[in-house]
Amino acid sequence: MLSISKRGESVSPSPIRKLVRFADKAKTEGVKVYHLNIGQPDILTPTEALHTVQNADIQIVAYTPSNGNESYRKALPKYYRKFDIEVSANEIIVTNGASEGIFLALLACMDEGDEVIVPEPFYANYNGFAEMANVKIRPITSTIDNGFELPTLADFQAAITPKTKAILLCNPNNPTGCVYDESSLRALATLVKENNLYLMVDEVYREFCYEDTRFFSALRLQDIAQNVIVFDSISKRYSSCGARIGAIVSKNQTLLEIIIKYAELRLSVPTFGQILAEALIDTPESYMEAVKTEYIARRDLLFQRLSTMHGVKCYLPKGAFYILAELPIDDSDHFCQWLLEDFRHQNATIMVAPATGFYANKHLGKKQVRIAYVLNINDLNTAMDCLEVALERYGK
Amino acid sequence: MLSISKRGESVSPSPIRKLVRFADKAKTEGVKVYHLNIGQPDILTPTEALHTVQNADIQIVAYTPSNGNESYRKALPKYYRKFDIEVSANEIIVTNGASEGIFLALLACMDEGDEVIVPEPFYANYNGFAEMANVKIRPITSTIDNGFELPTLADFQAAITPKTKAILLCNPNNPTGCVYDESSLRALATLVKENNLYLMVDEVYREFCYEDTRFFSALRLQDIAQNVIVFDSISKRYSSCGARIGAIVSKNQTLLEIIIKYAELRLSVPTFGQILAEALIDTPESYMEAVKTEYIARRDLLFQRLSTMHGVKCYLPKGAFYILAELPIDDSDHFCQWLLEDFRHQNATIMVAPATGFYANKHLGKKQVRIAYVLNINDLNTAMDCLEVALERYGK
Repeated sequence: MLSISKRGESVSPSPIRKLVRFADKAKTEGVKVYHLNIGQPDILTPTEALHTVQNADIQIVAYTPSNGNESYRKALPKYYRKFDIEVSANEIIVTNGASEGIFLALLACMDEGDEVIVPEPFYANYNGFAEMANVKIRPITSTIDNGFELPTLADFQAAITPKTKAILLCNPNNPTGCVYDESSLRALATLVKENNLYLMVDEVYREFCYEDTRFFSALRLQDIAQNVIVFDSISKRYSSCGARIGAIVSKNQTLLEIIIKYAELRLSVPTFGQILAEALIDTPESYMEAVKTEYIARRDLLFQRLSTMHGVKCYLPKGAFYILAELPIDDSDHFCQWLLEDFRHQNATIMVAPATGFYANKHLGKKQVRIAYVLNINDLNTAMDCLEVALERYGK
Repeated sequence: MLSISKRGESVSPSPIRKLVRFADKAKTEGVKVYHLNIGQPDILTPTEALHTVQNADIQIVAYTPSNGNESYRKALPKYYRKFDIEVSANEIIVTNGASEGIFLALLACMDEGDEVIVPEPFYANYNGFAEMANVKIRPITSTIDNGFELPTLADFQAAITPKTKAILLCNPNNPTGCVYDESSLRALATLVKENNLYLMVDEVYREFCYEDTRFFSALRLQDIAQNVIVFDSISKRYSSCGARIGAIVSKNQTLLEIIIKYAELRLSVPTFGQILAEALIDTPESYMEAVKTEYIARRDLLFQRLSTMHGVKCYLPKGAFYILAELPIDDSDHFCQWLLEDFRHQNATIMVAPATGFYANKHLGKKQVRIAYVLNINDLNTAMDCLEVALERYGK
């Protein structure tokens, strides 16, 4: 018998994937579905940079260098300097989004069976990358009671085994919106150094820190400069998810040499996306300020609406554009499917992500959903009307 | 000690990678280097399709579906029909070039330690994909004496073990230019069926079959439709390597369901590249005819020049744009480095790929180099002058 692979069969599917067909069905029935389930912002991509792509004088869409266009890599340090990050072009490898960066770093830092510690809830696709790389995620649980702050050093310490090679964080965090502050990261750095670990930080939401919350990049941890690998992407900050341009940034040249070998296998990253990415570096500050103002308004609305719903537990996230709310439910997968399949409020419903997919521990997240505030205020408000009515009706 | 992974350390580097710094050094010294080492054509990308990208009305560069834009997948069957291939949109998953397709198919079809049979010499990066997927390539050797025709069925049969899950071909072949004909493929199909194997065929050079050589796609092997997986790419046929758009095509829906899970992990393929790819489907036949005429002229020149060089063994390849020539040398790696480092002819030299990187058997390919005829006739002629003089001087 022709068979598929065991690993392929068991690879973790996207937590929202199984819901998509229910959303599609609702839509074919004429129901309006408010999509709060994915990190695809409705914010416009900066127009000037789009024009640069359109006006680019390209005659041959040729391979670019496997580590990325030199001109782009040379332009990036200017961008990073805005966050007090000092890096040079040769400390950057351009990748197909942050996704590829994470996967390649796991391959380069870890052998089969090695372990990476990840605070949970975490971005669900980390599961899949770990499975592809045949490494093991060891989760340590963060809790809604303190807004999903970084677990304690003792928690990290307790999770370290002889097989532990790395700690992987997402800061600002998807799915919680928590922002890890300088002192937490500095404390973690000591543990990282003592145990010869890599500190991998997914910083794709770097820009999205609100009010007086200051972002602190792991690339500023000079004591562990060799240990730090940062994953970056233009997807979120410039609403350019489809450009597929990210980066691995590290001061560890030995490691980058390995990653480059993997990067060479896939030849190059997209030509057009790199042109866009390079042009985006000159995006005026006013663009990001306007985007942040918009997200703060959305977050505040979401927080306010959720706070007044009976039995809902939430917190005011300091960053990213997600909130992981606890609802008066016992099975978030069932609830999210019910919303799409059975619930209608004024011929509309909402799609949110069950939090179970963001936990490695199978019994966690059953009362929680991730809400991405990627819709405008009006739609968000209507979506919250739906949620409020849904919670009143659910299970009755 | 902070360590890198053993697998990262041992991953096969690109066969030309170690030569790049010598080429760069020659160039900084003002030496003209003729690049016959890579598959980056100098042919122009079709202008009309480029204009479509430039005129596209994009306001948000958003994620596209993980399996590719529906409009593109629906347009592709028209393209395949030109090769008598009947496929539908749901039998296609758009990938980041053929490279990603091959890697994902290995993950989906094979578990760790499983074996894939590949005729050698083969595209060097297959080594890396196999290492990333932790599967084993079992090479069977083809020979220059018959223009690197497909090994015999007995050769394939002898290579099958209980761990064999697939046969991987490249047709037309990189690096040899050999085109496998219908009867060879039909014969192989019987063996594939009897042994419940996958037949994976990298068909990215499909268009490049010269004169009366007819291309026969593995997708036409109806008896083994469930076993066949074809990898495709717009890189070569439309000189669009930097668009990073390829595809996996298969009738095996169970398998595609697995591959889609992997595809979802990396979210989507590039937006701009897909717009280009869709527009390219309407490229007039005259474009490809002109390109083929040009490649035939180049191939003929190359063959004629090589044939008159003392001690050189070659053949007239029927497809792709490579020739794997045997030279009067004993160490192709040394020879290729010497060309860049020490040899100058009228202040010029050539860069070609040592064939050692295209063989799994470490002792093979030492007398061979791969020459890509991706330069215009004049440059190619001058490059052959260089090679001729080089062979006279080398080792003296």
